[in-house]
Amino acid sequence: MRAVGLVTEYNPFHNGHIYHIEQARKITNADVVVAVMSGNFTQRGEPTILDKWQRTQAALQNGVDLVVELPIFMAVQPAHRFAAGALELLNDLQVSDVVFGAEHPLWDFANFVEAEKHFSQRGFEKFNATYATQFNQQLSSLTGHSLTDPNDILAFSYYKAKLKNKYSIHLHPINRLGSQYHDQTIKGTIASASAIREAVSKHETIDQVVPKQTADLLEKIKCVPGWEQLYPLLRNFLIQTPLEHLQQIYQMAEGLEHRYREAAERELTFSGFIRRVKTKRYTYSRLLRVCLYTVMEITNDQVSQASTHPYLHVLGFNEQGREYLHQIKKSVQYPLLTKISQSEHDGLVNLDYRAGKLYQMFTGVEQDVKHAPVILKKTN
Amino acid sequence: MRAVGLVTEYNPFHNGHIYHIEQARKITNADVVVAVMSGNFTQRGEPTILDKWQRTQAALQNGVDLVVELPIFMAVQPAHRFAAGALELLNDLQVSDVVFGAEHPLWDFANFVEAEKHFSQRGFEKFNATYATQFNQQLSSLTGHSLTDPNDILAFSYYKAKLKNKYSIHLHPINRLGSQYHDQTIKGTIASASAIREAVSKHETIDQVVPKQTADLLEKIKCVPGWEQLYPLLRNFLIQTPLEHLQQIYQMAEGLEHRYREAAERELTFSGFIRRVKTKRYTYSRLLRVCLYTVMEITNDQVSQASTHPYLHVLGFNEQGREYLHQIKKSVQYPLLTKISQSEHDGLVNLDYRAGKLYQMFTGVEQDVKHAPVILKKTN
Repeated sequence: MRAVGLVTEYNPFHNGHIYHIEQARKITNADVVVAVMSGNFTQRGEPTILDKWQRTQAALQNGVDLVVELPIFMAVQPAHRFAAGALELLNDLQVSDVVFGAEHPLWDFANFVEAEKHFSQRGFEKFNATYATQFNQQLSSLTGHSLTDPNDILAFSYYKAKLKNKYSIHLHPINRLGSQYHDQTIKGTIASASAIREAVSKHETIDQVVPKQTADLLEKIKCVPGWEQLYPLLRNFLIQTPLEHLQQIYQMAEGLEHRYREAAERELTFSGFIRRVKTKRYTYSRLLRVCLYTVMEITNDQVSQASTHPYLHVLGFNEQGREYLHQIKKSVQYPLLTKISQSEHDGLVNLDYRAGKLYQMFTGVEQDVKHAPVILKKTN
Repeated sequence: MRAVGLVTEYNPFHNGHIYHIEQARKITNADVVVAVMSGNFTQRGEPTILDKWQRTQAALQNGVDLVVELPIFMAVQPAHRFAAGALELLNDLQVSDVVFGAEHPLWDFANFVEAEKHFSQRGFEKFNATYATQFNQQLSSLTGHSLTDPNDILAFSYYKAKLKNKYSIHLHPINRLGSQYHDQTIKGTIASASAIREAVSKHETIDQVVPKQTADLLEKIKCVPGWEQLYPLLRNFLIQTPLEHLQQIYQMAEGLEHRYREAAERELTFSGFIRRVKTKRYTYSRLLRVCLYTVMEITNDQVSQASTHPYLHVLGFNEQGREYLHQIKKSVQYPLLTKISQSEHDGLVNLDYRAGKLYQMFTGVEQDVKHAPVILKKTN
């Protein structure tokens, strides 16, 4: 069986994702579609609108055969680490191809990776500009192109990870259908995930842009999980914990802990807090990720430790997926986990377990311990 | 000017407190009534129903002349430390007398203190009984009495602190008027503070048992501040923080950190949590205090450090109180603080400042920095 891999967040699963799955099958002629999916927190460090089990169910009901969790130490990361982590798992899952959307699928991303080797360190020394801005100034002067669209950036990162690690995986950038990521209105049958989340938060209808089961779940949401609800936890921790502990938090770099603490002392809402910590140096995504690392007390040591021990946590499969798992299970390099036992929650999957406990605040639903994978039986 | 001291929580201020103030004046013939009052958290480790400024206002409007905060490292403590801290401050405030309620005001508490010197260490070695139970078994065998009522226990503790430190203060135990502390119904014009809080939480009328201004404030409360609201903060901290940090928390003794963490992982409500951590060894009060130390990350070191640096934080006064402050200000031993500056909030008053930031969750009102004392002008 040949497998095609997808890198996903499904936040939430929508009609554009169905198109992505169909295209992946069509282009590669694969027998199996394997999705690596973020858990309960997105790349930007925000809680997902539905939990990972609900999103797995939606993926399986709409054409994915096997869903594997992208661990939080890979998922809540800047694009290059997110993409590298996802490709690392897909490579271990032995997919032959990966299909992904890009704003400019015809660009020669491999050539950009080559160009990056000629960047100068001095081009990154401005403290009042984000890393991305300085990266693009250099890329543009060498290739005439800039990576400003989020999926182009991911596309570049997949090529970079493939070339660096000499993966044999074939990469297929394709056009994204319908609305752009930043488009905030819902029209037709395709909308961006962020437009859908926005509509859900306003209790507007999203029936035409997501599969029925997802629409039903979204319509039940009273309050979209978000940072305003997590803010009391973040604020109290930033105020109470000694600065020397805050300095140990992953990515709490360059005196950011003082900025975070002071903002926490002054601001009673998350929107006020994040505005106060924002500088030209860091993107909102970077700052949001640090919020999540902080509220979970994820330290540099914990990330280093976890990063050297990846695993394949199976969230769900159908019969095709089960067959594929059977085919690869003896040759995968990383531990293949189906149920999380008590000992694993203190060990290998500890960060995901703790993320699940935090997410439980929104739903009350246990996320990991003894949770069986979603299994979709064939319906005739 | 001669001053009489009162040790108070005023949670909330009620008619029984007016009687206490009147009796204190009458018995001692003092010119000034000085109240040492817990801040925003009670001896049991619970948030107060009104903040310390509102309670100070009520005290001043009803006969107290000067209110000084009992710092959290003295206030949120078992009875003997609470009483010793309060008496330490009142001694420095140079009161000549202290008047307090007791269930058995005619008992010879000084004699009980003498009896305690003959207690055996072996009488405290049962791990399935609280300290108080074992204390009383010994006291009873020596004196025929048991200290089971909360105000008797405090009375004993005042005598013990006085004798130990050779304070010249005269102690006056008096009868408490009306309802007992544990009485949960409101009848007549006197009710216990706990009955009043219970009534407020049920939106029942409390007009007849508290002064009008307090009634007005209590009637505006939508949700009584309590541990259910703080639980998400406590729970997340217990789950996310390394066990070696939890072990540093003040009073997190004898492996309690494992018990707390496991209960946090399993329970989504505070009531479920506290039931799960309860053992015969510890009272609910002790366990609640540890919850507060935990959510504020108060360590053993922080309490040791703070305990050796007491201070007199003036919360409010009227003209009598101002005159008295003027009389004693040059001879008090501890720093006399009126406004808390930025540097003090990181130093001397840091624990109270942090308690205020936590309490701000309930009300949004800044508690310490630059907060002027409540000043009650004479109304003719």
